[in-house]
Amino acid sequence: MINKVGIVGYGITKFSKDDSKIESVLFNSTRNLFENCPNLNQKDIDAVLVSSNNNSKYLSAILSEITGIQPKIAHSVESLCNSGTNSIVAGYSYISSGLADVVLISGAERYDSPGQVLEWDKLRGEFKHPIFWASIFSKSYKRKFSITEEDLAIVSVKNHKQSINNPNALSQKKYSIEDVLNSKKLTEDLRLLDCSRPCTGGSSILLASENFCKKFTDCPVWITGIGQKTTSASFTKNIAFDSMESTQIASIDALRMSKHNVNEIDVMEVHDAFSVCEPMALDSLGITEEGKGIDLVKEVYQTGNLKINPRGGIIGSGHPLGATGIAQAVEITQQLQSNAENRQVDNPNVGLVHNMSAASTSSTVLVLEN
Amino acid sequence: MINKVGIVGYGITKFSKDDSKIESVLFNSTRNLFENCPNLNQKDIDAVLVSSNNNSKYLSAILSEITGIQPKIAHSVESLCNSGTNSIVAGYSYISSGLADVVLISGAERYDSPGQVLEWDKLRGEFKHPIFWASIFSKSYKRKFSITEEDLAIVSVKNHKQSINNPNALSQKKYSIEDVLNSKKLTEDLRLLDCSRPCTGGSSILLASENFCKKFTDCPVWITGIGQKTTSASFTKNIAFDSMESTQIASIDALRMSKHNVNEIDVMEVHDAFSVCEPMALDSLGITEEGKGIDLVKEVYQTGNLKINPRGGIIGSGHPLGATGIAQAVEITQQLQSNAENRQVDNPNVGLVHNMSAASTSSTVLVLEN
Repeated sequence: MINKVGIVGYGITKFSKDDSKIESVLFNSTRNLFENCPNLNQKDIDAVLVSSNNNSKYLSAILSEITGIQPKIAHSVESLCNSGTNSIVAGYSYISSGLADVVLISGAERYDSPGQVLEWDKLRGEFKHPIFWASIFSKSYKRKFSITEEDLAIVSVKNHKQSINNPNALSQKKYSIEDVLNSKKLTEDLRLLDCSRPCTGGSSILLASENFCKKFTDCPVWITGIGQKTTSASFTKNIAFDSMESTQIASIDALRMSKHNVNEIDVMEVHDAFSVCEPMALDSLGITEEGKGIDLVKEVYQTGNLKINPRGGIIGSGHPLGATGIAQAVEITQQLQSNAENRQVDNPNVGLVHNMSAASTSSTVLVLEN
Repeated sequence: MINKVGIVGYGITKFSKDDSKIESVLFNSTRNLFENCPNLNQKDIDAVLVSSNNNSKYLSAILSEITGIQPKIAHSVESLCNSGTNSIVAGYSYISSGLADVVLISGAERYDSPGQVLEWDKLRGEFKHPIFWASIFSKSYKRKFSITEEDLAIVSVKNHKQSINNPNALSQKKYSIEDVLNSKKLTEDLRLLDCSRPCTGGSSILLASENFCKKFTDCPVWITGIGQKTTSASFTKNIAFDSMESTQIASIDALRMSKHNVNEIDVMEVHDAFSVCEPMALDSLGITEEGKGIDLVKEVYQTGNLKINPRGGIIGSGHPLGATGIAQAVEITQQLQSNAENRQVDNPNVGLVHNMSAASTSSTVLVLEN
């Protein structure tokens, strides 16, 4: 019998541009997690996993030492922008295989993370940051589905607006469609406000086996679906620039494992690294038909429905790479526990996390439910 | 029912001082693994894990791309010198939890690995490399158990001798006790030939669930015991400098899980980063009584018994950090499959891997058997 795995606690820091050391960022979100879990004792924790692109080594042992934990399992997990969800899946497997009962996962990044530039991908040409692939995604998606720059700007407007209700978000400012369209032009198809911004931030999550859940919470959020896929490490190997193959595969697998239909998803965090990514991800997740993601974005924006990226997504919250996937899972956990304050969606039962790396050359999809 | 996990293939590179890129090192040991597993197809592989201290990001996706694999799960694992065994345990848990059936794990390092210097540990003082803690371990161990410099030199002599039969070892030269005692004095308690050397090298291993094992081999080696412990990240937090607390705990847990007594271990790789580590690890593993490890080292050396570090250990083979734990497991696999050529121990049934980081502030112990 495979152990069920529940999310039983979380902690987060304010996402900012500050210059904190990586160890401090890890410590701060872990401390917040302990504050949120009054019954948690250091001795309960069997594994400490760190998710980061930081170059420092042995961070799991360091985090363990500074928080007074002596775990059995301790290591870092790295896979660029979806390091966070990869570490959650690793934690899940330690519990479901019986090697651990309680796993602490902490993601952290600094604004100057080396994970922003994947030297391997030579296509980047003069561009240091991932705007090269975001430009081509934007151009291809707009052309194929007759979508305008104004349409895509709504993603940024919506997510910046939603992040105002997220006290930990980097952005606390409302922008209009005109603001987005008048923001600095980075390439022919991309403006500054279409982009998420790297930042300093941390988020932590506590996983427990079914038997151990009740010590920490009366309402654990279960991880019922996991889908992951890596298609390559290079943007040019994508089979299309207007859909996300790895996301399509991960979504099918996660939904199948959870035994849910895509229509049953009540709230979701999707990886809006750039404006175009949100509608494209909705298509590839199967939430919308091909090319129709932008219509759903417009609809939820106009009706004030918060179901897509309630915390403001990556564009609104900021993108501390190693922390992002964990922060997404924290948001969906808060939503499913009806604990999301001004961001709360009405009575959600099933939530989804979509986290990807490097032009969707890899994706993770998680289904969470209460 | 938890899936049983078997080692069904391996690959390795020559350990050397060469300047290969990390991607090439990963590729070369993975290619060797494919050569050794004629029935292995890229499509069989559900997960690709990379073990390294290299600062490059997204290495699991890169290795997947250059070897034609499109895995579900792909991420790096880092925990300094025991990254390799941490990645094996991660792979084990992906299989035993049912998230994967076949996992490729590849460890690689360059001679100039940033993992050699743990900036976090301020005790290092003027010393860049880990000789500061090895000196204190040597001084404490010698004093407590009335052991001489000559006694410890036997570890280096034995392991250099044994590595001559390992075609992939960095060292291919025999040394006498006098050679060790006359080698460069690094500190009062440590000479150059007491130290393992960082190098460039890779090693890969293929894990499979019980049902999938038979596709790849008739004689899988089962991972039957796992023990891991992190006590801190700082040398000075060790409770003793003449024993390894994390190793003691990991050994008890691994043996209990495997249902074996320590006397049933027929062959072992123990983490001889420095001469003193081999006898100290034998004590802490419970193989010998406290302070008696050196007597066993002398006995096996004098009788030509290869059961301790048959491939030459870390001192003889070289220490490519992220590859070391995997190379240790490859050696024990070859031994248990009676495939270790000139290094073969007589009919071993149960083997042990001991891999640690940073002055034994963390340890992994694996029990393997056929």
